[in-house]
Amino acid sequence: MTAGHYYEKVTIVGVGLMGASLGMALKGKGLAKEVVGWGRNQGRLDEAADLGAIDRGTRDRAEALAGCNLLVFATPGEVTAKLAGEWLPQTPPGCRITDLVSVKGKLVETLTGLTPPRRSYVSSHPLCGSERTGAAAARPDLYQNQLCLITPVAGTKKTALSGIQKLWQALGMSVVSMAPARHDRVVAAVSHLPHLVAAALINQIGDEKLLAFGGTGLKDTTRIAGASPALWAEIVTENRREILSQIEGIMENLMLVKQHVKSGDPARIGQWLRKAAMRRKKLDE
Amino acid sequence: MTAGHYYEKVTIVGVGLMGASLGMALKGKGLAKEVVGWGRNQGRLDEAADLGAIDRGTRDRAEALAGCNLLVFATPGEVTAKLAGEWLPQTPPGCRITDLVSVKGKLVETLTGLTPPRRSYVSSHPLCGSERTGAAAARPDLYQNQLCLITPVAGTKKTALSGIQKLWQALGMSVVSMAPARHDRVVAAVSHLPHLVAAALINQIGDEKLLAFGGTGLKDTTRIAGASPALWAEIVTENRREILSQIEGIMENLMLVKQHVKSGDPARIGQWLRKAAMRRKKLDE
Repeated sequence: MTAGHYYEKVTIVGVGLMGASLGMALKGKGLAKEVVGWGRNQGRLDEAADLGAIDRGTRDRAEALAGCNLLVFATPGEVTAKLAGEWLPQTPPGCRITDLVSVKGKLVETLTGLTPPRRSYVSSHPLCGSERTGAAAARPDLYQNQLCLITPVAGTKKTALSGIQKLWQALGMSVVSMAPARHDRVVAAVSHLPHLVAAALINQIGDEKLLAFGGTGLKDTTRIAGASPALWAEIVTENRREILSQIEGIMENLMLVKQHVKSGDPARIGQWLRKAAMRRKKLDE
Repeated sequence: MTAGHYYEKVTIVGVGLMGASLGMALKGKGLAKEVVGWGRNQGRLDEAADLGAIDRGTRDRAEALAGCNLLVFATPGEVTAKLAGEWLPQTPPGCRITDLVSVKGKLVETLTGLTPPRRSYVSSHPLCGSERTGAAAARPDLYQNQLCLITPVAGTKKTALSGIQKLWQALGMSVVSMAPARHDRVVAAVSHLPHLVAAALINQIGDEKLLAFGGTGLKDTTRIAGASPALWAEIVTENRREILSQIEGIMENLMLVKQHVKSGDPARIGQWLRKAAMRRKKLDE
């Protein structure tokens, strides 16, 4: 039975960084009586259990779903869409369903269509990834003080929406609700473009020997380029329409910078840099 | 008298983040009998003295120069070039001179020309700035484990070069020596371009409300855009030729990314991201 934001049995599909950290957080805050992890690799399930991220792991879907009140897909987008076709029809009545996928449009449409009556699905995107991966990198406070975007659709019931909202709030997150299409536009600007730009910056340094001269500035600017290439290739492919428009935007901005630099006028360059510095301060507020 | 890397009297011109941190490091490691700070603002000199960054502050040039064995300009490029015209002719015989300016070409030429016989000038660029400024942000370990580029010219004597090299090494830095022109090319790639790109990324986010959705990725990628606009306007203006060529380079790279994204082929995007991730790992080594 689900009451408020306490769950009898939470099933987490995928025990990587996000899934294992979620398990740790739920257990640490006493928000679930039992946290079950599902995965294909027994070794990884054992590792997650050893780390205290889940109470037990199983490779059996039926076992994972029996009595489940909250089902969380902590898997990449393509895997989630594929698994959902097998899992969602078998969820018990009253089960809440969410995912942590970074691109929403098509995925939300697919999972909404697969959700049987008397179950509720609200998609989530906790903005707290890391360039690190795997349960070994998991932390119980990964979600704490971070932002979570949730993306209801036309048919989403109020109780379902507030249930998922309360879940993330109970983990210390701020929650903002927006339509899937808007979500994809927003993350293209604040997450996907920075990722590609970081990768472009590091790839542009032609001579690898020059990397030795990189200080904290280069390290900070390119840190996210160290994240999983496979995961990001999927994200970029999935959200390519919005990302293309962002790439065009940054190229226009760089054309502008080029003009400023070419002018050789420190006042003009300074004004542009001052705008950036002021905006950057707002980001820390 | 100067023996090895121990100095009787070090004079630091400018007691901002770099100058004050240098004073703390020299005093902390017992590398100077006396550290004197020079500045125009008595309040700032007092603050630096209160923080233990200097033994005493003075606004008097003659007093600052009397018996000085090591003179360090910890001032921006334009100020340094201007002050050097007044200071260098008055340095006592045997005095070592250096600066911490980020762009070398013209500056090194100017200061080399101003250095009287029996004094030695070797320009330095410790790669350990921060987006923070002022003595209040100074740390005795700012230089520790960081890289310092030094830029000798044709006439630089071996003893002068090794003296400055030993100074930075004694502060825990790795030291690499290169010609001023190469220095300016290198820092355009690993420091100046990342700075402008970080500023372009944050300026490109049209709607300021979107900043609320920025996670650690956006924060890391744009952190250096928070640095002093005035200082960076000067750096960018001074090194504009090299920077323009870097901006052209990143735009070509972004054109390439655009093609990859447009292709919608995750394998192609993944390969490009994999190259970036591998290079990023090397940066941490």
